[in-house]
Amino acid sequence: MFGTNEQQARWLRPLLDGEIRSAFSMTEPEVASSDATNIATRIERDGGDYVVTGRKWWSSGAMSPRCALAIVMGVTDPAADPYRRQSMILVPLAEPGVHVRRSTSVYGYADGPHGGHAEIDYDHVRVPATNLLGDEGSGFAIAQARLGPGRVHHCMRLIGMADRALDLMCRRVTDRVAFGGPLAAQGVIQEWIADAYIRLEQLRLLVLKTAWLMDTTDNRTARREIAAIKVAAPATAVWVIDRAIQAHGGAGISPDLPLASLWAHARTLQIADGPDEVHRRSIARDLLRSQQPAASGATR
Amino acid sequence: MFGTNEQQARWLRPLLDGEIRSAFSMTEPEVASSDATNIATRIERDGGDYVVTGRKWWSSGAMSPRCALAIVMGVTDPAADPYRRQSMILVPLAEPGVHVRRSTSVYGYADGPHGGHAEIDYDHVRVPATNLLGDEGSGFAIAQARLGPGRVHHCMRLIGMADRALDLMCRRVTDRVAFGGPLAAQGVIQEWIADAYIRLEQLRLLVLKTAWLMDTTDNRTARREIAAIKVAAPATAVWVIDRAIQAHGGAGISPDLPLASLWAHARTLQIADGPDEVHRRSIARDLLRSQQPAASGATR
Amino acid sequence: MFGTNEQQARWLRPLLDGEIRSAFSMTEPEVASSDATNIATRIERDGGDYVVTGRKWWSSGAMSPRCALAIVMGVTDPAADPYRRQSMILVPLAEPGVHVRRSTSVYGYADGPHGGHAEIDYDHVRVPATNLLGDEGSGFAIAQARLGPGRVHHCMRLIGMADRALDLMCRRVTDRVAFGGPLAAQGVIQEWIADAYIRLEQLRLLVLKTAWLMDTTDNRTARREIAAIKVAAPATAVWVIDRAIQAHGGAGISPDLPLASLWAHARTLQIADGPDEVHRRSIARDLLRSQQPAASGATR
Amino acid sequence: MFGTNEQQARWLRPLLDGEIRSAFSMTEPEVASSDATNIATRIERDGGDYVVTGRKWWSSGAMSPRCALAIVMGVTDPAADPYRRQSMILVPLAEPGVHVRRSTSVYGYADGPHGGHAEIDYDHVRVPATNLLGDEGSGFAIAQARLGPGRVHHCMRLIGMADRALDLMCRRVTDRVAFGGPLAAQGVIQEWIADAYIRLEQLRLLVLKTAWLMDTTDNRTARREIAAIKVAAPATAVWVIDRAIQAHGGAGISPDLPLASLWAHARTLQIADGPDEVHRRSIARDLLRSQQPAASGATR
Repeated sequence: MFGTNEQQARWLRPLLDGEIRSAFSMTEPEVASSDATNIATRIERDGGDYVVTGRKWWSSGAMSPRCALAIVMGVTDPAADPYRRQSMILVPLAEPGVHVRRSTSVYGYADGPHGGHAEIDYDHVRVPATNLLGDEGSGFAIAQARLGPGRVHHCMRLIGMADRALDLMCRRVTDRVAFGGPLAAQGVIQEWIADAYIRLEQLRLLVLKTAWLMDTTDNRTARREIAAIKVAAPATAVWVIDRAIQAHGGAGISPDLPLASLWAHARTLQIADGPDEVHRRSIARDLLRSQQPAASGATR
Repeated sequence: MFGTNEQQARWLRPLLDGEIRSAFSMTEPEVASSDATNIATRIERDGGDYVVTGRKWWSSGAMSPRCALAIVMGVTDPAADPYRRQSMILVPLAEPGVHVRRSTSVYGYADGPHGGHAEIDYDHVRVPATNLLGDEGSGFAIAQARLGPGRVHHCMRLIGMADRALDLMCRRVTDRVAFGGPLAAQGVIQEWIADAYIRLEQLRLLVLKTAWLMDTTDNRTARREIAAIKVAAPATAVWVIDRAIQAHGGAGISPDLPLASLWAHARTLQIADGPDEVHRRSIARDLLRSQQPAASGATR
Repeated sequence: MFGTNEQQARWLRPLLDGEIRSAFSMTEPEVASSDATNIATRIERDGGDYVVTGRKWWSSGAMSPRCALAIVMGVTDPAADPYRRQSMILVPLAEPGVHVRRSTSVYGYADGPHGGHAEIDYDHVRVPATNLLGDEGSGFAIAQARLGPGRVHHCMRLIGMADRALDLMCRRVTDRVAFGGPLAAQGVIQEWIADAYIRLEQLRLLVLKTAWLMDTTDNRTARREIAAIKVAAPATAVWVIDRAIQAHGGAGISPDLPLASLWAHARTLQIADGPDEVHRRSIARDLLRSQQPAASGATR
Repeated sequence: MFGTNEQQARWLRPLLDGEIRSAFSMTEPEVASSDATNIATRIERDGGDYVVTGRKWWSSGAMSPRCALAIVMGVTDPAADPYRRQSMILVPLAEPGVHVRRSTSVYGYADGPHGGHAEIDYDHVRVPATNLLGDEGSGFAIAQARLGPGRVHHCMRLIGMADRALDLMCRRVTDRVAFGGPLAAQGVIQEWIADAYIRLEQLRLLVLKTAWLMDTTDNRTARREIAAIKVAAPATAVWVIDRAIQAHGGAGISPDLPLASLWAHARTLQIADGPDEVHRRSIARDLLRSQQPAASGATR
C-alpha cells in the first residue's frame, strides 16, 4: 500500500513468494509504547542515507532464520507535531549495526516458530534514503492504516483458539470420572461450558460484523467495532481457555496439550497491538463524541 | 395456536381488540418452579367440569382491572409421565373461588402497570371441561412452544433498556463535573462506557441471529441460541444499567430517573421464565450431546 | 465533638434521650457531591443571623415525624481555599423556609422508617449565628472527623446483612427440591455458598482490624483501612445477597423476604458516604505516596 | 510424624541436613486425581517386599539431582473401603524400575529449580516391606494429616508473590509516562492498585487467622478456614499479578521480570493440592451440615 515500485520489487515479491520473512519493529523497552508518541528510536537524515539508532523488542518474527527485513518506526523530526514526528523505514537485518539480541518469550513460550519475536539493537544502521516508506512524518498514518486488518486477523485466530479449547474441554469432561460420575455431570463444569458457548457466539458475530463493515465500508468507519473486538476477543479467549485448563487439571497446564500455550498467546494479545486500556479509551471517546449533539442512541 | 374456535371467539378476539387482558398463572410459591414438574396445583375432572385448586404467584399482569382471564397450569394426571402430568386451562378471574391476594412486587416496584403481577388463590374453582387448552397432559408441550418467542421478546426489551441506560450515562458524565473536569474525562467512567458498548453490540447481534433462526427455521432448531440470549441479555442489561446508576450517584437509585426500576426489572429476568442456571444446564447438555460422536467444533 | 455547651443542651440532650431525631443535610441534586467542593448551598451572614439557601437530598432520616433538626453543609466563603469554603450549621426543621419535599427512595424502598431520607428546600432560612457548628470554614474538617466512625458502622451492618442472607440461602437450598434432589446438592449452589463464606470471612477480619486500629490509634492512621472496608463491605454484601436472592427464585425479589430490600440498601452504600471510585482513588494515592521513597512493600 | 525410627534415621536425617531431597508422588496422568480414590498405582505385597507399579506426574521436586527418595501413594487393597485402599511407601529413586521421564512444566516454566516436578514411571519397583509408611490402608489418613500445613504454607508464599507484584506495579506506574502523565495518574491504574490492596489485606488476615487456629487448636478444627484460603489465596494472587503484568505491558510477560513466572505458579495452585472446585465443595457441605439443626448464623 505504501511501498514504491522499487521497494516492492526488492522486498514484497520475495515476501509473497515465501522466500523471506519480515519483522515489524515498533515497540521499545524503554518507553510506554501504548502511547506511540513515546517512541524514541531516531531515523536521521545524513546525505543520501538515513541512520537508524534505537532499541526495539517484540519485533515480530525476527527470530526466524528467513527473516531478512525489518520495518522500523522511529522519529525523523522531533520538532514536528506529535503525530507527524514518526516515519517507517526498511532495514535489512543483514546491515552492519543490526543486532538481534534474543527472543522475547511470553510466559515461558516463544511467540512463534524459531523463537518468535526478538529484541533488536539498531546501532547507527545506515540505509539509503530510498528505503523510507512513504513520506517523512507519515509513520503514524501508515500504522493506523494497517492496524484494522491486523486486528481483525488476530481476533479470528482467537476465536479459533477458544473454539478448540471448548472442544477439548467438552471431550475431557465426558471422559474423566470423579466423585461417582463424569465431570460433565457436575453443575459447575456445565456452567463453564454454557458460558463459554454464550460468550463465543456473541464474539463470533461481532467479529463477523466488523469484517463485513471493513469489507463494505472502510477501516475508519469500522474503527469502533475494530476496537471493540480487539478488547473482547482476547478477554473471551483467555476466559474460555482458562476454564478448559481448569477442567483438565494438571494436564491443562502441562506441555502435553496446547491449552497453556494457547492461553499465554491469547493473554499476550491484551497487551500487544495496543493494550485493552487504549482501545477502551478510544471507544468511549468516540461514543461520547457521537452522543453529544442530540444523543439518539448507543449505536450508530 | 392451541385454542378451539369457541375459545378463540370468546377470549382471543377481545384480547386482540384490547378489551380485556389475560394472565399466565404457572409459578407457585410453595415449590421450586424452575423445575416445572414440581407444579402442584390440581386440575381435577368432575363430570362436565374441571375443578382448579392451588396457589400461584407472579401471575403476569393479573393486577390490571381489565384482566379477565388466567391461563392456569396444573396437574391433571399425577400418575402420568412427569412431562405429561400437566395441563393448561382457561379460568375467568370472575369465577367464584378465584382470589387475587396481592401484587407481587420486585425490589419494591410493581412489575407492570396497575400493580403488575399477582398472587392468586384458586380455591376449588369450577370451569367447564371445554375450557381446557389442548388435550389433557399437553401443558408442558404448550409451555415449550410459547417460551421461545416470549424469551426473544424479553431480550429485545432488555437491549432497549440497556441502550437507554448507556445513553443516559453518556449524557450525565458529559454534564457533571467533579475533581476538576467532567466525569467523562475519568478513565474508570470511560471503561464503563466502552465495556457497555462492547457487551451490548455482541448481545444485539446474538439476539438478531436468534430471531432470524426462529423466523427461518423453528424454535427447536434455535433452542440453544434462545437459551443463550435468555442468560446473556439480562446479565448484560443488569451490568450496563448498574454502571449507569453508579455514574449518576444518588440520582441513579432515586425515583427521578428510570434506572433503578429498569435495573430491578432486568434483574428479575434472571429468575423469571427460567432462572439462568436452568438455561445454562440446557446449553451445556445440548453441546455435550452434539459433541460426542466426532466433536467437530463448538458450534453446529 | 464540635457543639458548644448551649448547642449541646438545646439539641444533643434531647437527641440522646430519644425525644427528637436529626438529619445530616449535605448531598445536593444539582452537583456531583462525590466531590464535596461542588456543594453550592449558601450560608450567608446577615447581622446576627445566617441565611441558608439551597436544595439538599438524601438528608438522612428527615422523613421521620420526630426529626427536629438538620445539620446543613454549605458555603460561607466562596472565595476561600476549596477546603475552607464550607461550614455546617444547625437548622431546626420547623423554621420558616424549610420545605421537606419528599422521601428519596432507593430502588422502590424507603431508606429507613417513616419514609427515610428526604429532599429538602432551604429557602432563605434564617437562623441565629450561634447555630454555626465550629468556626466558619470548618465544615470540611468536621465532615472528615466523623466519616471514619460512620463508615465502620455501615460496614458492620453490612456484614450482618450478608450473614443473614447466607443463613437464609443455606436454609432455603436445604428445603427446596428440584431436578431430583435438594438445591443444596447442586454444585453451582455449593459454589455460591462457599464463595459467600470465603468473602465474608475475609471482610469480617478486615473490618475488625480497622475497628481495632481506630480504637488503638486514630481515624487518620486507619484511613487506608477505612477506605478499603468502605469499598469491600458493600461489594461483598451485594454479591452474597444477590446469590441468596437467586437461590430463592421469585421469593428472593418478593416483599415476603428481606433479601431484595437488604440488597437495595447494600447497593446504596456503594454510592452513599462517598462512591467506591472516590475511596479507591484515595487508597491508590496513599499507597503510591508511601511507596515512592524506598518501596519497602505493599503495606505499612 | 509417621515414619519408624529406622525410616527416620535412613531418610529424615539426611533430608533435614540438606544432603538429599524427596519427592511426593501422588497425582497420575490417567485419572482425575482431584478425587483421590481414583488413584490407580498398585503397591502389591510379594513376600518380604512390596512391588510398586504405576505412572505418576507432578512428583514434586523430582528433577533435582539431589532428589533421592519418593513417597509414593498407591493401592494396597483394591477391595477395601475407598478411603482405606491406599498406602504410602518409600521408594528410593535409584531402584531398578524407577524411570524419571521428564519435567512437567507449567505454562512453559519449570516448576522449581533443576527442572522442578517430574513424570515418573514405576515399573515393578521392588522395595522391602519395611518401607511402608504407617499401616497398610493409612495412605489417605496420612495425606489428610499433612495437607493443612502444606496449604497454609502455599498461601503464605502466594501473599508474598502478590505483595511483590503490587510493589513492582506501584514503581512501574510511577516511572512510566503515557498520554501526558505518569501511568499512576490514570484512574484505571489507580483502581487496580486499590483493589489489589483491598483484596490482599483481607486475604492476609484470613491466612493469619487460619495459621493461628491451626496453632491453637488443630487442623481438623481449622479445616473450613484452610479450604477457604486454599481457594482465596491463588485467586487473589492471580488477579493482582495479572494486573501488575498489564501495567507493565510487554515487560510484564517477558523473562526480564518475575511477573509472568509468578503468575504461572500462582495459577498452578488453583489446580495443585486439590482444585478450587473440591475445596469449595468441602466448605459448602461443612456449612450446610453445621447449619441444619438450628441455623444460628453463617459462622461458628
